Amino acid sequence: MTAYKTFSETDVIQYVQELGYFKKSQDLHCVEMGDGNLNLVFRVSDAKNNSLIVKQALPYARCVGESWPLTLDRARIEAEVLLEHFKISPEYTVNIIHYDAALATIVMQDLNAFEIMRGELVAGKRFPHVGRQLGRHLAQTLFYTSDFYLSAKEKKRQVARFINPDLCQITEDLFFTDPYRENERNNIFQPTETLSLELRTDDNLLAEVAELKAKFLNNTQALLHGDMHSGSLFVDDKTMKVIDAEFGFYGPMGFDVGSPIGNYLLNYCGSAAKWDGKQKANHLSILKDITRDTWTVFAKEMTELMDDKTQDLALQSPTYQARFLRSVFLDTIGYAGCELIRRTVGLAHVSDLESIQETNARAVAEANAIALGKALINKRHSFVSIEDVLLEAEAIVGA
Amino acid sequence: MTAYKTFSETDVIQYVQELGYFKKSQDLHCVEMGDGNLNLVFRVSDAKNNSLIVKQALPYARCVGESWPLTLDRARIEAEVLLEHFKISPEYTVNIIHYDAALATIVMQDLNAFEIMRGELVAGKRFPHVGRQLGRHLAQTLFYTSDFYLSAKEKKRQVARFINPDLCQITEDLFFTDPYRENERNNIFQPTETLSLELRTDDNLLAEVAELKAKFLNNTQALLHGDMHSGSLFVDDKTMKVIDAEFGFYGPMGFDVGSPIGNYLLNYCGSAAKWDGKQKANHLSILKDITRDTWTVFAKEMTELMDDKTQDLALQSPTYQARFLRSVFLDTIGYAGCELIRRTVGLAHVSDLESIQETNARAVAEANAIALGKALINKRHSFVSIEDVLLEAEAIVGA
Repeated sequence: MTAYKTFSETDVIQYVQELGYFKKSQDLHCVEMGDGNLNLVFRVSDAKNNSLIVKQALPYARCVGESWPLTLDRARIEAEVLLEHFKISPEYTVNIIHYDAALATIVMQDLNAFEIMRGELVAGKRFPHVGRQLGRHLAQTLFYTSDFYLSAKEKKRQVARFINPDLCQITEDLFFTDPYRENERNNIFQPTETLSLELRTDDNLLAEVAELKAKFLNNTQALLHGDMHSGSLFVDDKTMKVIDAEFGFYGPMGFDVGSPIGNYLLNYCGSAAKWDGKQKANHLSILKDITRDTWTVFAKEMTELMDDKTQDLALQSPTYQARFLRSVFLDTIGYAGCELIRRTVGLAHVSDLESIQETNARAVAEANAIALGKALINKRHSFVSIEDVLLEAEAIVGA
Repeated sequence: MTAYKTFSETDVIQYVQELGYFKKSQDLHCVEMGDGNLNLVFRVSDAKNNSLIVKQALPYARCVGESWPLTLDRARIEAEVLLEHFKISPEYTVNIIHYDAALATIVMQDLNAFEIMRGELVAGKRFPHVGRQLGRHLAQTLFYTSDFYLSAKEKKRQVARFINPDLCQITEDLFFTDPYRENERNNIFQPTETLSLELRTDDNLLAEVAELKAKFLNNTQALLHGDMHSGSLFVDDKTMKVIDAEFGFYGPMGFDVGSPIGNYLLNYCGSAAKWDGKQKANHLSILKDITRDTWTVFAKEMTELMDDKTQDLALQSPTYQARFLRSVFLDTIGYAGCELIRRTVGLAHVSDLESIQETNARAVAEANAIALGKALINKRHSFVSIEDVLLEAEAIVGA
């Protein structure tokens, strides 16, 4: 058994040749291109530009350094979540070719013909298919890994297999805890400081966030991707692919549905503050469409799957299924609200806000992201449909 | 390593002597006294009546036979749940002395000075301390095994350790599924047949039971005993001891609180139908006290523990804690309602109803148990306190 060692670009070339993905005689090119927070990501290619991605987990968080140790088991979780989701939704899941436990390494399809969605949204591009495709992908991956479809025994086996303490703890801390109290990890833009302090004394907000955290901690509804933001989505003009599932675990469905919606709305707040006129109106309209599509297609497909494919006799009640979907809606909006807040005042920011050069515009964008986050969390029980979320966003940014 | 074999009384004597609990020279007496559905239970004693209990899991359900295989791992679960609960609540938990994985055997303290609570309630006896003690035991065991107290990492380790698919499936089927549909396992008293059929077409009831089942399947709030009925409680005139934790797993707190309350109310329906006058009035009053005490002491202790000992910063919100307690109340009443129904029309009955000799009286008791079960499940969202449960019980039995 190979011992773990951190790969260099030369190591990666030798590794993929030994695995037989390229002939040894070929002249290969390898470049480390990771821009994430936790891992090494290498692209290996031959002269004809046939290529593969080799992703290696480091035994610590790359963005912080060796002082923040992290389990290498996250490479197993990432590979196994993506393989499970690929079985269910191959069209929209990156293809995992090989996983190596000792080296904490995953070999996967290179998506070099795709772009990362976050960057494209920041640039104002339009992907009219992504909301519908993501809604469908979410419904499929969440339904088929839930109690509706799996036997209780198989579900329990899967829950145990995907217990993911280290990575979940990052979310538990950075998403639900730190943004609402003093913590040195918080990263707060100076003009946003007063608003960030107000979060810490909003009793109802703190109670709602506690409830959302408790659900994250102990509601094993389905096998989540666990980090479904617009940086985990690769898009082109026809389709999309989900990558980066190392935060995967059995958790509440609304977390996976709410994360991308929170990210669309972060972009909404950023775009509304940095653009004007027709450019602004067009882009906000695009973002409303993708938000609406993600939820409505998810809800429609989930309703059909529950109706057609539920195996558990007791869960076949149509009234229960309708109530369940409503509870996923409330969770979705709550987690989207948490994402808006934690990406503004927590450790990990997003370019949708941070790339705004002009201080006042960024301050307005951040104030709106916080206000919208609070409104979604505090007022979601009064929302009837996704349109209420869009109306709230419009009202807050004044669009 | 010893291979598994089913113990005879002679084997048990040799086993406890080899473990050193009795001297080899002593003349020991052993008797198999199991009256449960799943296991062998031996009492070993010497001439001075020093005694121990040896419980052995059989590789099948004793009440059905070898056609219903059951994992021997349930002996591990039982021993480890009781040891965890003993650490937290030693006064009210049976003392486990030894656990043997290969033989699926547990050696434990003999509670021969105690009586099983169900039998005592059926005989009309009074135990004014039990409600308060059980309320305290439930608050302690559930709080200290929950996210309020354990770190998220430790909690996840415990969730994995106590995944209990075989025994949970029995509850999933017999508690939530079978009583509400045609199933050959159901055991229905002929005069109750019409009422049992009505359960199958009550849409709201089916939806509420589905929700309670979904929570049982995927809400890992705390380490439950999992089978906390009045047959798992040993009582004397000062204290009580909880036994029989083989159904233990990480589940919703309200399941453990609701099970004994459902059983008190089964006895309430039975006693109201079989007795008259002062005897009836006294006993129903005793049952109301124990029901009230169990919930109110649980709620008071849980409130204090959440306030004083919550480690998770986000879960320290007092507003969240109050809402959480309300959700446990709703679950408690819902699960108590399920217990009333499944013990009347499901596979496993209770002597509180079955021991009623007179057909009409038993039919009335069963009709009331079903009506109360339905009311608790369907109307619980409108209940403000445990008094509403008692008023509902009074109204239904006409006491």
